[in-house]
Formats: sequence, structure tokens, C-alpha cells
Amino acid sequence: MSQPQTAITPRRDEDFPEWYQQVVRAADLAENSDVRGCMVIKPWGYGIWESMQRVFDGMLKETGHKNAYFPLFIPLSYLAKEAEHVEGFAKECAVVTHHRLESDGSGGLRPAPSAQLAEPLVVRPTSETIIGASYAKWVQSYRDLPILINQWANVVRWELRPRVFLRTAEFLWQEGHTAHETEREAREETTLILDLYAKFAREWLALPVITGEKSEGERFPGAEQTLCIEAMVQDRKAIQAGTSHFLGQNFAKASGIEFLSRENKKEHAWTTSWGVSTRLIGTVIMAHADDDGLVLPPRIAPAHVVLLPVTPKPDTRQAVLDAVNALAAQLRAQTFAGEPIRVEIDGRDVQGGQKNWEWIKKGVPLRVEIGPRDLEKGSVAVARRDRGPKEKEFIPTNEFTGRVAGTLQEIQDGLLARATALRDAHTVKIDSKEAFYAFFTAKNLQKPELHGGFALAHWDGTREVEEKIKEDLKVTIRCIPDGESDGPGTCIFSGRPSARRVVFAKSY
Amino acid sequence: MSQPQTAITPRRDEDFPEWYQQVVRAADLAENSDVRGCMVIKPWGYGIWESMQRVFDGMLKETGHKNAYFPLFIPLSYLAKEAEHVEGFAKECAVVTHHRLESDGSGGLRPAPSAQLAEPLVVRPTSETIIGASYAKWVQSYRDLPILINQWANVVRWELRPRVFLRTAEFLWQEGHTAHETEREAREETTLILDLYAKFAREWLALPVITGEKSEGERFPGAEQTLCIEAMVQDRKAIQAGTSHFLGQNFAKASGIEFLSRENKKEHAWTTSWGVSTRLIGTVIMAHADDDGLVLPPRIAPAHVVLLPVTPKPDTRQAVLDAVNALAAQLRAQTFAGEPIRVEIDGRDVQGGQKNWEWIKKGVPLRVEIGPRDLEKGSVAVARRDRGPKEKEFIPTNEFTGRVAGTLQEIQDGLLARATALRDAHTVKIDSKEAFYAFFTAKNLQKPELHGGFALAHWDGTREVEEKIKEDLKVTIRCIPDGESDGPGTCIFSGRPSARRVVFAKSY
Repeated sequence: MSQPQTAITPRRDEDFPEWYQQVVRAADLAENSDVRGCMVIKPWGYGIWESMQRVFDGMLKETGHKNAYFPLFIPLSYLAKEAEHVEGFAKECAVVTHHRLESDGSGGLRPAPSAQLAEPLVVRPTSETIIGASYAKWVQSYRDLPILINQWANVVRWELRPRVFLRTAEFLWQEGHTAHETEREAREETTLILDLYAKFAREWLALPVITGEKSEGERFPGAEQTLCIEAMVQDRKAIQAGTSHFLGQNFAKASGIEFLSRENKKEHAWTTSWGVSTRLIGTVIMAHADDDGLVLPPRIAPAHVVLLPVTPKPDTRQAVLDAVNALAAQLRAQTFAGEPIRVEIDGRDVQGGQKNWEWIKKGVPLRVEIGPRDLEKGSVAVARRDRGPKEKEFIPTNEFTGRVAGTLQEIQDGLLARATALRDAHTVKIDSKEAFYAFFTAKNLQKPELHGGFALAHWDGTREVEEKIKEDLKVTIRCIPDGESDGPGTCIFSGRPSARRVVFAKSY
Repeated sequence: MSQPQTAITPRRDEDFPEWYQQVVRAADLAENSDVRGCMVIKPWGYGIWESMQRVFDGMLKETGHKNAYFPLFIPLSYLAKEAEHVEGFAKECAVVTHHRLESDGSGGLRPAPSAQLAEPLVVRPTSETIIGASYAKWVQSYRDLPILINQWANVVRWELRPRVFLRTAEFLWQEGHTAHETEREAREETTLILDLYAKFAREWLALPVITGEKSEGERFPGAEQTLCIEAMVQDRKAIQAGTSHFLGQNFAKASGIEFLSRENKKEHAWTTSWGVSTRLIGTVIMAHADDDGLVLPPRIAPAHVVLLPVTPKPDTRQAVLDAVNALAAQLRAQTFAGEPIRVEIDGRDVQGGQKNWEWIKKGVPLRVEIGPRDLEKGSVAVARRDRGPKEKEFIPTNEFTGRVAGTLQEIQDGLLARATALRDAHTVKIDSKEAFYAFFTAKNLQKPELHGGFALAHWDGTREVEEKIKEDLKVTIRCIPDGESDGPGTCIFSGRPSARRVVFAKSY
């Protein structure tokens, strides 16, 4: 049987959401569990997360942050402390009410009525309130500030419409929580983290994110300012890929984080919080994968290179395997992006074509075949994931080893360039309401083609306009973008004055 | 005010459990939260866990294991699948019954009655059952085996008598879950992991653990064999520091992990599971800390060296700080145990004596003072945590840099030697019931002195004897030890025959 025209069915242009699910499956990244909305992250998917963790954790430590760990459970009363926060999170929490099970008398189990908790516990949807309770104990004087702490953890937000990696009931993330002596320092921290997120997204995930500030309507519940990175993916929708919140003194007041200032006065601390999650994996898939499966930015690929021994005959088998092992050792002695090259050897007893396609679908940057004929010639057959599935280059082995890091960076750069071109091609200034509605309306409702993108339009700053657009088009303000602007104008919806263009898009 | 004779009150010999709590507090490792039994792991404590994770994760990857992630929640019905397992874990589970909160009408929150789950969810106490459900889907043929997966995760076991790090309602751990084609392979895996645990404990944590097999009464619920590492700590009690379980086909049958064998027959897989947890941090504290606070094995210390600038006068301050930064850079360019030397600079505006004592209590292996006079002499004042708190050695700076890795290994070796001497001094062969009861009975009940240890005694292999000793003395069989034995004998409790001596001890 020959390969179908594309390894993934349907193609991106046929049914993007279904294509996404099929890529996740074909690349063996994750699967749904029997617990609604909770995913199993399989080794290849978790390997991507480990790469992300390693790199971003390093960036956090370089900027003076330390890791710690706070409880999974939050007393119900804590969550109620900050008024907006409770509004924002109370809807979607897993609630622990019992601490023991007992037999139900018919072979099953039930929560033991005698073990009902006096105060129910909420499984953390985010940890501002429980961490705030600790900081209130730790902070006495300005000398105890700043506190710059991050935690890597699982959190739970009950989701009605889960989608693997992008929106799951349980997900993994890092959440930073800092407390500062002054407003200025807390604002600087919020910006510093946004910059780290943007750098991480661009240089490691090959995502040309735009940075900016959320409108009041899209802010984190309880925050005074939410900064974000927003990525465009291949169906031209936006994904909020990371947020950094300036919380003012709101949470410090709710939690009682007070300190004696340099002037010997009691003051509330200024706090921030910020996070990125396993949603980044979904973003990378939607941004870079193609109709043959996943395409991984080399810098976060669990393996940079897979070696595929070709052993058609028993008598040359051992020589091939020895050569493969030797090449693996040589490659591992090289570095790429500051880390040793990661090599997988796939020696499974599986037909060669099938094996090759499995690695294409997994998105490994480089596939290298070595067979008896290659050994004779002293060369290897190299295929790049950013080129056609059948393109192979025969390269002398030593030459390949010498230039592998360069090739990987070339692939990395190519992915960023391609994603940037997509973003730029679908980011448009729109100056009338009609054009705006047309931009965000599919032309064929039976088979909605990929459409829309990022619309830069003038907005009068009101919630009213924001809500109306959301209701009509499911389009939201992704951010008030950082950087240059073409100045003030007129809101295309209300005709009222607008300070600057903002970014509208459909989003995940 | 001069320092008290010891930095920790009470001393180990006065009140060991209270001394432990005070060391945890003085070293700023962790604290209790408002959620009963759930701890906050502070940055210095979490740093120890990160060191442990980094090292052991590397050992797992070198032996072919990969990480993955499975859901936090387990459907109630899963837990009931394996009969012994449910008995062992059902008693102590956090149970999620609702997925939404609502206002209780008086300013508070309550679980929304309309959002009661049809099937309650259990917060994982361990993941055999939920991982088994995945493996049942993944395994079709012998070609899909072995599966060698590990996960780093939080788990919850409701504890009535929590003790920070040693027994907490929520704790962090790694849990490995493997599935194999044959019994032999699964047994080999169980042993391989035990060997890794023992190596990790001895070489990295300086814990001279004994290895062996648990008696039936102390086995993991549902396992056919539980292997363990047991450490002796300074009050001569045992701590079970890691376990590796051979599960036979029990869980495979309960979860339906079946495969088509090489003979084309349906067979159940053979599985194992194994874990170590943040309990290791408690073990390290109890094994190595002294009456001045924590003493960290250098290989897992979050910082190997702390640099303490002494800046008595403004005019020499900058020169001192420059020298400290230069020394930090030189040290960080060195490696110890395969990793760059970890250096902290404590430039806080805190009185020097206080600062020095804080680092003693935190157990950092090397403290290095640099002041204007040291600069003139080109030397540094070095204090080792394994020596008296006031012992300082003045060493030429370059000499110190050159030998720092050697000094750290010397400290590491010293801790292992000291712990080994303690263990050996309190491991005794006991050949009568009277001597056994005397060994485990404190001589002064008003002020129970440190007593007991590991008793090597003959046991007839019955649950009856095991239960009686537990009831009388709170002493349990820690393991049937690996390695040489002085052969069969007579049970000192029943007079019946005994195959070999086993290890009895009180334990945490």
C-alpha cells in the first residue's frame, strides 16, 4: 500500500480542528483519559514539556527567581477573599468534600459520610490565595522583599469544552508569584517576565508572538494589568500563550501581606503573578505542524536526530548497528543551543517505510538512515522535517556530524520565518465596520474555509463595543499591542475617539 | 548576646522529634499550611528536591525510562478494581464530589448541588489503576513491551498524624510503572530500580541504606514482592526511603493489560511500580543534621558554597564585592560530581554573625568570608559545615578554588562514613526474646533516651509473631535483608525454625 497523499487526514485546509486532533494522535503526544477533560501526556509530548521546562526554568533562575511548592488544596474561605478573583474562578473548581472512602455495601465504594470535611477544599485553579497566605507570614519588613518565587505544578479548572493541550481540566504550568516594596518594582517585574516569555516563544518555540496589554474585559480576575503574548496559528486564530499580571495591592490587601517600610510605616506589598502552561504545546502544534504531522522547532524537540538502521541482511546487520552507535556517540558529543545533541536510535523490528513515517509524524527535525550501502560509501542519508517527506540528501558521515548543529538552527530559523510570514500576511489594518465583519465571516458556511486573522482596528475603549463584537463574531481584543502605533483615530464601531489601534481576533 | 551553646533547641539527645521540627524551621526548608497535613516547601527545601530530581531523573533516563504524565483524578470505580489495593488505599483518600462552587447566600461559597459529579473522583494516592487503564489501550502485542515510564507528580494520602516531609497529606514523588512480556524481565526491573535507589541513596544522599525484601505484612497492597531501601537515622529508628514492587500479573489482570505473545497467545503483562518521595528530604535531615541545624550532603545541596562579603567600611566595600563576584565566577567554572559548582552570594545588609549562623543552620557545605584584610592577603576564610561552627581556615584564594571540588567530596565521604558508623554501632544480632524487648524499651520513661537500633533476629515467618511485636513494641520487620546471612536458626519469639535473620526496628 502506498502512502496517502498526506499522512494526516483531514488536511489543515479541510478541517483544522479535526486535523489538530489527528496530529496529536499521529505524533503520539497525548490522549484523553476516562476522566472528562483530563489528558494523559505521553512520553513524546511530555518530552516537549521537559524541554520547555528546562529552558524556561533556566531563564527564571538567571533572573533571580527560585522555585518552591505550595499545597494543591485551597480552603474554600481563601478563595472568597478577593472579590473579583472568586467571581473569575469559583465557577469551575474541583471541590474535595470527603477524606475517606468506604464500601457502599454492593462491591463498590462511596465517600464516607463520617469523613466529610468541615470546610471543603478546592483543588487549586491558580495559587494566588494560598501563596498569599504564606507571604503574609514571611514578610515583616521591607528587608524581606522582594520575594521572587515560581512553582511548577498541576492546576485544575473544570472545562465544559476541553481540547487536548489547549483547554484541559487539569494542566501543567509554572506560576510565578512575586511581592515587592514599591509599585515601580512590581511593574518592572511584570514587564521583565513578559519579555522573557516573548524571548522564549520566539527563540525556542519559533513563535513570533505579539506582546501587549489585555483590555479590562480580558484581564485576570483581580489584576490591575494583564500583559500577554499572543501567537497566530495556521487557521489564523490567536492563542494566548502566556500572561503576566500586575496585581497592584489587591491580593496583598486580601491576604494581609504587610511590611514595615523604610519610613517605619505599615504598607501593603505590591504583587505580580504570571504563568505559561502545557497550552504552549498545543500552540506549537497549531503553529508549525503540517499535513504530514507534527513539525518540531529543533530547540525543544525531545530528540534532534533519529537514527534509523537499515538492516536488510543478517550478515551486515552488526556492522550497521555498530556504525549507528558510533554515530550516536559522535553526535551526542556535539552541542546545539547550549545542550548536547539529543539522539534517538530506532532499532525496532518494524518495516522501514512505516518507521520513517512514524518519525515524520512525530516531527523529529532530522531523520538519518544508515544501511550497508551507506557504510560502504561512508555516508548517511539525511532527511529534514522542514522539507518534503521523500527528499533525502546523501552526506559524508563526518561532514554531517560537523554541520548538524548548523542544520538544526537553520530549521529553527526557517520555522520562525514561516510563522512570521503567516502572521504578517494575515495582520491587516481595518478601517470600517463592514470590512471588519467581512474579515471575520467565513464566505462558505457549509465548509468554512480558513479566514480572518489579526485585525488592527480603532476601538473606543468601552466594554460595550467589546461585548457586542464578541457576541456577533466571537472576536475578542487580543491585546493593546506594545510598540509603535499609527496614532489616535476613530472607533470603527461607535465613531467615538480611539487612542490607538488594538488587535482583534478569534481565539482558542 | 552570645550564641547559645547549640543553635537548635532542644538538642537531638533531649527531644529528637522536636529537634527535627526545629531544624526544618531553622533551615527554612518548609512549613505547615492551613490545610491540615499539607506542607509549603520553601525555596531552600525545594532546592534539595530539585537536586534529587535532576540526579535521579538522569539515572532513570540512562536506563531507558521516559517520563510521562497521567491524570490527578482517578474514577472511584478504578480504585475498586484491585481488591487488596482498594483495601490499602481507600481509607485515606481525598474525594472530589463537585465541579463548581456557588454563593452560599451569606458572603461565602459552597459546592453547587447542581454540580455534583455522577461518579466521585479520587485524588491519586498512587497511580497504578489510572496508568493501568492507559497501558491496557497501548499494549496489543509483545512488540509493544516493555513500557518503561516514570512520572514526577504530587499525590495525596490523608494522614492523621502528619510530620513535615516524612508523612504529609500531599507529597511529591516519582512513580515508575513498567509492563513486561515475562516474569523474569519484570523481576529484573524491580531489582534494577532497587539498585538505582541504593546507589542514589549512598552516593548522593550519603545514606548507607540496607536493601531487602518486605515481609508479606509490610508489602504494597496488591504487590507480590516489595523491595526496599531502609535508612537508619540518628535516633536509631528506620525510615523506609524507597520501594520497588513486583506486581506480578495482579494489576494487569485488574486493568486488562493483555498482549498477543510470540506464540500468538493472549497473555497478561507483568508489571512493576516503584517510588521515592520528598520523604527523602526528611531522611537526609534526620540522618545528617546536628545540634546546630541542617548538614547537607554536598552533592544535593542547593548551594555548595556561600560567599559572605565582609564590608565594614564604605571605602573598601566595592573592592570586596568585586572580589566576591570574581571568586563566584571562578568557582562556577569548576565542576563537582559532574555539575558546575553552585555558589550563593549573600550580600544582604544583615549583621555578619547572624548571617553566618543562618548558613550554618541551612547546612551549606562551605562558607567563605571575604573582607578587606583577606583581600590584602589574597586569601579567604573558609568554614566547613562538617567542622565546629567557629573553625575557620585561611586559604590563598587560588588554592581554595583549585581544591574546592575535592573538599566537597571529602565532606560527602565524611557524612557517609559517619552515618555508616552510626548504623553499624546500632545494628546488633539478638538471640533471645528478653534481650529483644530490652533493646527496644527505653530505660527512662520520663525522659526516653535514644535507644534501640536495627535488631537482626530470627523470625519464623508468621504474621502472628509480626503483629505481636508491633503491638507490644511498635517494632516492625523493616526487611529480609539482601546479601550474606549466618544461615537458618530458631525464631526467638516462637521457637519455630527460621530461614534467616531479618531486620527489626522502630520506624517513621
